[in-house]
Amino acid sequence: MSSSEEIAKAAKLAFEESQLFPSAERVNALHLIRKELDLRKAAILAANAEDLNAAQLEVDAGRMSQSMMNRLDLGRGDKWDAMLQGISDVAALPDPTGVVDYATELDDGLDLYRVSCPIGVLLVIFEARPEVVVNIAALAIKSGNAAILKGGKESNRTTQLLSAAISAGLAHTALPATYIQTIQTRGEVAALLACDQYIDLVIPRGSNALVKNIQNSTRIAVMGHADGVCSVYLDESADEKKAVRVVVDSKIDYPSACNAAENLLVHEKLLPTLWPKVAQALVDAGVKLLCDEKTLEALKVLSPSPTNVAPSKPSDYYEEHLSLTISVAAAHSLQSAIQFINSHSSHHTDSIVTESEAAGSAFCRGVDSAGTFINASTRFADGFRFGFGTEVGISTGRIHARGPVGLEGLVIYKYVMKSKGPEGHVVGEFGAGAGKKQYKHSRIQATSVPF
Amino acid sequence: MSSSEEIAKAAKLAFEESQLFPSAERVNALHLIRKELDLRKAAILAANAEDLNAAQLEVDAGRMSQSMMNRLDLGRGDKWDAMLQGISDVAALPDPTGVVDYATELDDGLDLYRVSCPIGVLLVIFEARPEVVVNIAALAIKSGNAAILKGGKESNRTTQLLSAAISAGLAHTALPATYIQTIQTRGEVAALLACDQYIDLVIPRGSNALVKNIQNSTRIAVMGHADGVCSVYLDESADEKKAVRVVVDSKIDYPSACNAAENLLVHEKLLPTLWPKVAQALVDAGVKLLCDEKTLEALKVLSPSPTNVAPSKPSDYYEEHLSLTISVAAAHSLQSAIQFINSHSSHHTDSIVTESEAAGSAFCRGVDSAGTFINASTRFADGFRFGFGTEVGISTGRIHARGPVGLEGLVIYKYVMKSKGPEGHVVGEFGAGAGKKQYKHSRIQATSVPF
Repeated sequence: MSSSEEIAKAAKLAFEESQLFPSAERVNALHLIRKELDLRKAAILAANAEDLNAAQLEVDAGRMSQSMMNRLDLGRGDKWDAMLQGISDVAALPDPTGVVDYATELDDGLDLYRVSCPIGVLLVIFEARPEVVVNIAALAIKSGNAAILKGGKESNRTTQLLSAAISAGLAHTALPATYIQTIQTRGEVAALLACDQYIDLVIPRGSNALVKNIQNSTRIAVMGHADGVCSVYLDESADEKKAVRVVVDSKIDYPSACNAAENLLVHEKLLPTLWPKVAQALVDAGVKLLCDEKTLEALKVLSPSPTNVAPSKPSDYYEEHLSLTISVAAAHSLQSAIQFINSHSSHHTDSIVTESEAAGSAFCRGVDSAGTFINASTRFADGFRFGFGTEVGISTGRIHARGPVGLEGLVIYKYVMKSKGPEGHVVGEFGAGAGKKQYKHSRIQATSVPF
Repeated sequence: MSSSEEIAKAAKLAFEESQLFPSAERVNALHLIRKELDLRKAAILAANAEDLNAAQLEVDAGRMSQSMMNRLDLGRGDKWDAMLQGISDVAALPDPTGVVDYATELDDGLDLYRVSCPIGVLLVIFEARPEVVVNIAALAIKSGNAAILKGGKESNRTTQLLSAAISAGLAHTALPATYIQTIQTRGEVAALLACDQYIDLVIPRGSNALVKNIQNSTRIAVMGHADGVCSVYLDESADEKKAVRVVVDSKIDYPSACNAAENLLVHEKLLPTLWPKVAQALVDAGVKLLCDEKTLEALKVLSPSPTNVAPSKPSDYYEEHLSLTISVAAAHSLQSAIQFINSHSSHHTDSIVTESEAAGSAFCRGVDSAGTFINASTRFADGFRFGFGTEVGISTGRIHARGPVGLEGLVIYKYVMKSKGPEGHVVGEFGAGAGKKQYKHSRIQATSVPF
C-alpha cells in the first residue's frame, strides 16, 4: 500500500470511528484548535515570513505575481484575527448533521427517518492562501467529515505549522488524530485521486485549470466551480437608474470575482435610448467595452467619443475577463437573450433588469443557471450574502449542490428505520394477498431521530 | 459534429426550451403517451413477440438465460397494464419542481428563493426489460428533465415502437420532440459519455459490471448502484423470534434483489443459544450457510447435522450471492460488528437485531450505510416501501442522492432573487463602512416562488 493510500485509508477509518461521538465533541475540537493557533501565533507568522521571503525571490525573478504573494501573507491587515474568528463563527453555526427532513410510519411501530449525515472523506485542494487550510478544516470538522488537505507549495512552511496546530487541538479530544491530515506534493494528490474506495468527494478551490485538471483525473465526485461567465440582460422595459446601477455594480464592485458580470445584453429597442447612458456610466467607471456591431453603432451619439470602446469578436462572449472589461451584444427579444445566455454563460449567475413581471418570471425559468436575479447585481451570488453564515465554495455543477454552497453541501443523508413491534418487522407480511398488511405511509413530525 | 453529439445537443436545447412551459404540460404529455401506447398495443406486442422469438434462439443456443428472456416479455402477466398504470401513477405524484426549501429577505425589497428544478439532460442506460423505457421516460418528463434512453439490444424491436409511441404523445404537446430520445447501439453510448457539455447525469440501471464500466468511462456524474452486500447483525441482546424473522426474511424474501442480506454476523454470546435456532430456520428455508470457524463449531449441536453448511473463506464476506446462500461470522462486540460491516458491506443497507436502545442507536450512527435498520428486514430498503410513490433506482453513491431514490433524486435547485426596490439592488451599498447597509437575512415563509 502506498503512503498516499495509507493516508486515505486512515482518513476513512477516522471518519468511521468519529461517527460514534456526539457532535458536541466536534464543536469542542474547533475551540481547542483556535486556542492552539493562538498559542502558536508567533511561530506560525515566522514561518509565514520565510514563505514570503522565498516568494519575494520568485516575484523578483518574474515567476510569481505580486498579487499571489499578497495572498500568501497571513499577517496582512486583520487576516490572522479573521481566521481565528472564522473558526468560532463556524463552531456557532447550527449542526448540519442529525437533521430529519423526511419521516414516515410504514406500519404500526415501524418508523423511517431520513437524517442528514457527513459525506465521509473530503480531499480539498487549494492554492496560495494558507488560511484556507484552517477554514476548510473548520468546515469539515463542523460537518463531521474527515479531510485531507493540500495547499499551494508556496505556503508549505506556513501550512505545516497550521496543520500541526490543528492536530494538537484534535489531540485534546476523543476524535482520531488522522481526522484532518495535510499533504504537501502534487504526486500525493495524483495518488489520492485514485483512492475512490476511501475518498468520497474532491473539492478543488482555485483556478479553472486546477478544477478541470482534477475532473479529468478521477472517478471520485468533484464539487468544483468551472468558470464564472455571468451576464446582465437589459430588457425592453428596463428602468434607467436600475440598469445603470445593476450593470455598473455587477462589473466593477470586484472585477476578479467569479460573480462579476462579463457579458451585457441590451434589448434592441434600448439602443438609441438607455444603452448610451449605461455605456457612459461604464466608461466613466473605467470599464472597457467590447461591442457587437449594433451596440457599437449606437454609441456614435456619445460626445466626446469614448476611447475605451472596441469591436468584439465572437469568442469574447465566452471569456471570463476578471478585469474591467465587458462584452456587449444586442438582443432582439427576451427569448433570444435567454438562448444567448444559455449557450454562452457558465450557468453561474445571470441577471435581468426589467419592469415587466412576465419578463422577469420567464427569465428566471428560462435561464439555466444556479442564480437568476431580477433587478439585482450578479455580485449578490455569495454564501455570506445568501445568509449561510459561511461558504464552502460556489458550485457550477448540477448534482448535489449548486451555486453558493454552505455547510449543507458537505452533508448527505442516511435512512434510519426502527421496528418497535413485538416481533420485529419483515416485508413478507406486506402485499396484495389475503391476510397481508398494507403500508401506512403516514408522515411523522420530527426534526431529529428520537433514539 | 457526430450524430451522437447532435443527439446530446438536441436534448440540451429541448431541455432549455421546455423550461418555459408550465409543469402541467408535462403531466399532459404523460396522459397522451399512455393513450398512444394503448392505441399501439397490438403492434408493440407483435414486435415484442419477434424479440422473444430471436431470444428463444439465443436461449436454445445457450447464449441467453431463460430468466433474461422472461424479463423481455412485455405480454407476461399484468406487465402491460402495470406499465400503463405506472405512467398515470407518476403523473399523479406531487410536482418535484418549483418547491422552495429556503427563502430569505436579504434587505427591504430583496428576496431570495432556493427552488427545486430539473437537473437537465439524463442519459439512462438499462438492460433487457423493455418497459423500463416507458418508466424512465415518465420519471424524466414528470421531473422536467430531457432524457436519452438506451435499452438492451435484445429488446430493440419492442423499445423502438415504445419510443415511437412516446414521441407521438409528445408531438401533441408544446414540448419539443427531442425531449425524449432513444438510441440503439453501444457505440452511441460511448460517444455520448464524452458529451459532458450537454449531458448532466448518467443513470445506469443494470448489472454491477455495467455500472462500473460506465463510471470508468465518463466525466459526467453517475448515479448508480454498485453492489448490494447487506448484512444483518444479531446483537448480544437479540430477541429470538425477531432474529429468526428478520434474518430469514432478509435472506429469502427475494434473494436476487440488491437489498437481500448476504452476510450474517452473530454476537459470540449467542453462539450456543440463539444461533443454532436461526441457522436451523435458514436451513429449513433452503439457505446454504458459509460459516467461519466459531459459527460452524456452534452448529455441531444440531441433529441431524445439516448438509447445507460449509466453511467460509474470507472473500465470501464481500460476495453478493444473489441466491439462497449467506456468509456467517461471529462478532465479539457491537463495535467489531460495526467495523466488520463498514469494511465489508457495500454501504447499501444493514440491520441490527437488538433489545438494547443504546446498541441500536450506536449501530445506526456507526454503520456508514444508506440504510441502517433496527429489528427490521433489509428488504424494506425500497422506494415504494419508503413511501416515495416511485423509485428511480437505489444509489450506493454518497453525493446528491443516497439509498432508494424517488423523483427528488432527479431535481436540483436554483436560486431566484428579486429586487422590488425603487432603484434595484447592488452590493456596493452593503458593508462595514459609514452609511452602508447590513444584510437582514430574515426568513420568508414560502413553498413556491411568488412570481
